[in-house]
Amino acid sequence: MQKRECDVLIIGGGPAGSVCAMTAKMNFPTKEILVVREQELQMVPCAIPYIFSETLGCVENNLVSCAPAQKFGISTLIGRVESVDIEKKTAYMAEYEISFDKLVFATGSRPFVHPALSDSLHLKGVFTVPKNVPYIREMLEYTNNKKSVVVVGTGFIGIEMAMEFAQSGKEVTLVGRSRHILKGSFDSEVATMAEEIIRAANINYIGGEGVEQIIQKDGAVIGMKLQSGILIDTNMVVLATGFKANTDLAEKAQMKFGHYGGIWVDEYMRTENHDIFAVGDCAMRRHFITKEQSKVMLASTSSAEGRVAGSSLYGVKYLKHFSGTIAIFSTVIGDRAFASAGITYEEAKNSNADVVVGAFEGSNRHPVAIPGAKKQYVKLIAMRNGGQIIGGQIVGGEEAGEMINLVGIMIEKGMTIYEAMTVQVATQPKLTAAPTMYPLTIAATMIAQEISKGYVL
Amino acid sequence: MQKRECDVLIIGGGPAGSVCAMTAKMNFPTKEILVVREQELQMVPCAIPYIFSETLGCVENNLVSCAPAQKFGISTLIGRVESVDIEKKTAYMAEYEISFDKLVFATGSRPFVHPALSDSLHLKGVFTVPKNVPYIREMLEYTNNKKSVVVVGTGFIGIEMAMEFAQSGKEVTLVGRSRHILKGSFDSEVATMAEEIIRAANINYIGGEGVEQIIQKDGAVIGMKLQSGILIDTNMVVLATGFKANTDLAEKAQMKFGHYGGIWVDEYMRTENHDIFAVGDCAMRRHFITKEQSKVMLASTSSAEGRVAGSSLYGVKYLKHFSGTIAIFSTVIGDRAFASAGITYEEAKNSNADVVVGAFEGSNRHPVAIPGAKKQYVKLIAMRNGGQIIGGQIVGGEEAGEMINLVGIMIEKGMTIYEAMTVQVATQPKLTAAPTMYPLTIAATMIAQEISKGYVL
Repeated sequence: MQKRECDVLIIGGGPAGSVCAMTAKMNFPTKEILVVREQELQMVPCAIPYIFSETLGCVENNLVSCAPAQKFGISTLIGRVESVDIEKKTAYMAEYEISFDKLVFATGSRPFVHPALSDSLHLKGVFTVPKNVPYIREMLEYTNNKKSVVVVGTGFIGIEMAMEFAQSGKEVTLVGRSRHILKGSFDSEVATMAEEIIRAANINYIGGEGVEQIIQKDGAVIGMKLQSGILIDTNMVVLATGFKANTDLAEKAQMKFGHYGGIWVDEYMRTENHDIFAVGDCAMRRHFITKEQSKVMLASTSSAEGRVAGSSLYGVKYLKHFSGTIAIFSTVIGDRAFASAGITYEEAKNSNADVVVGAFEGSNRHPVAIPGAKKQYVKLIAMRNGGQIIGGQIVGGEEAGEMINLVGIMIEKGMTIYEAMTVQVATQPKLTAAPTMYPLTIAATMIAQEISKGYVL
Repeated sequence: MQKRECDVLIIGGGPAGSVCAMTAKMNFPTKEILVVREQELQMVPCAIPYIFSETLGCVENNLVSCAPAQKFGISTLIGRVESVDIEKKTAYMAEYEISFDKLVFATGSRPFVHPALSDSLHLKGVFTVPKNVPYIREMLEYTNNKKSVVVVGTGFIGIEMAMEFAQSGKEVTLVGRSRHILKGSFDSEVATMAEEIIRAANINYIGGEGVEQIIQKDGAVIGMKLQSGILIDTNMVVLATGFKANTDLAEKAQMKFGHYGGIWVDEYMRTENHDIFAVGDCAMRRHFITKEQSKVMLASTSSAEGRVAGSSLYGVKYLKHFSGTIAIFSTVIGDRAFASAGITYEEAKNSNADVVVGAFEGSNRHPVAIPGAKKQYVKLIAMRNGGQIIGGQIVGGEEAGEMINLVGIMIEKGMTIYEAMTVQVATQPKLTAAPTMYPLTIAATMIAQEISKGYVL
């Protein structure tokens, strides 16, 4: 057993862990930072679906190494931490015993599969979507000569996997338990737009439907039976039914956990023991608006958490700005980008929040004769009293990816629709909507009119 | 002479006038709103350059009619207001005498040409870029069989005209008085990136150079002599040397004017007489940051002003949110988008502001193997004390058009780099930079490090 010492031990080298390491080195340059990660090369998590089509085409196009960290003077050890002794401030690996002053859990998440289906996971042809290089490589190889695939789960990863399989010429069935896809991120009228694109891509989308059984023969999947009795023949099933916090190590160390299984943390990502931090998918999250605990898992939120922890390890360097995740997402379905931030109208109603909605569809270029112009749909959700913006949904061209970040900042900074009505934006024919018809402004104006019960646009 | 009555008379149907009319109708639905505009069909101002290439190809593709306004119950009269009697609350046209309760000047701007060159304006082949349909139609026709063109002026319109002419196969010379193009919007290192693209498009760019003389023969341009003695043969010259407020009517009515010739207005776009408003390019503007009067002319700012005036005609309906223009621009040069908001570093230094800069170049997609990935350069300028963000410049793909609006909202809402460091953004392989390397966040972090004189990334 080799002994090693460090000041800060970070377990995990995904977005949260690596950003935390870099930030820690910037803020506390004299400290020895050690990252332990299981894989030398890691995948960009949200680009995994693109490995399964021509977009990336192979695992190699989606690999990130630990080289940048080393350039900054951060040490890396490839391997697995078996246990941690919080009292003794020591972590144990097969060949190392590492003593630390501060510890950061950044152990990420792994696929969640409903217990009723977990027995099928060992079957040939049944997959989940873990952030595991050899697994994905093997899955890609298996995929190559398969004619059909059933994807279960209609969250972002499920939709993206289904679309990439369809693009590479497979017969795809997409099964979701909710009536509409991307539940929680989009209201049903927006989800319906996405479902139309999915069906137009020849995907057999079956919503509001559960899986009864994965049918096997000789240890390999041969089909699926849905709860309504529908039978589907297939040699490949992908279970994209969500992720759960990876907390085996933290459980052994008897840490405290949040409602959905993440390691309990305060606003500065500190556990009850202020020498121990947790960041990313393995940590507990709160919802920015409802203040309730949240199941949202996002690389961008993880990165933000890594920055917060990295600058708070030895005393708080910067006041924590945000409180909880605003659940800000984007994806591409067909030639449209779908993006969402904050709370949906349906979620707001369920939380009994008194909100008003404004939605407007214009063009993402102006005049509409500009080549490449696409429809741009913007929906805002605001508090009736005061008009504070608490949610937004955008369907448009690629610009929607950054436009939703604009809505995100409005939410984080507590902007009201009254401010948004006269917000100053750059508009340009080849890049944006018209200044006179900027959909965010129009949606805000519609809410103001609705609140004042005046003339509604 | 026919008599007409209205509650609100708006003179001008450009972005400011038409948005003002719509907003007025929404806020004060019982009022009779009349817009007087000179042309039945008007062009989208910032798309005029695209008429001169395949992008739009003709004036018809860039026309907006007054039909939408009519749909909302707004009356329109095509013609010219000859004079206004403020005391009698009456406007005079050739065939109409219009009495009003509230008046809004929205008379826009027209090309500015240096007095030394204004004598050449009557020459065949010498043009400016006015928002005038018959003029642009005639100019396009003249352009058709010309092999070469000299564009004078390196603001947004000059650059866009030069690039569109080059794209349509002409030999283009671009002459600018400043050492670098797009002065005021970009610092020199960013302008240099744009100049490289312009030169790569075979444009002969000559910076830091004035026009000595436009050479003519028989009333037609045949060349140009620059101040350094350079002679250029050409049958076409476009003077894109800025715009000036169109205030003939306001001058006759003896209104008060601001430093750069715009009609003096307060924060609610009211003149000293609270029944008389002015919006858009004909009105005075203040700079959001320096608080000095500003020459910036932008359709998006005009639209925002139209909204403010339109909701303040009969008492202030909404508290004015912004104070002055943040000068937020974007354009496309070659396959790159260039965007700017707030103050540049050079301008800040000239104003003696104590600022710190952070700049980072990453990729606009992640991983970089994603098809279509381009470099994305983000520069932020912040106050050293407190870290408030006061400027930003972005060079990237099309996403830069909305990303600069994100910076704009940060500036308007007084966001600091400490908040920006952990701002929550949606990141997606096909739409944005990586969550771990989001350039806005990195630039903010670099500023924080520089301020704390810690370890600099």
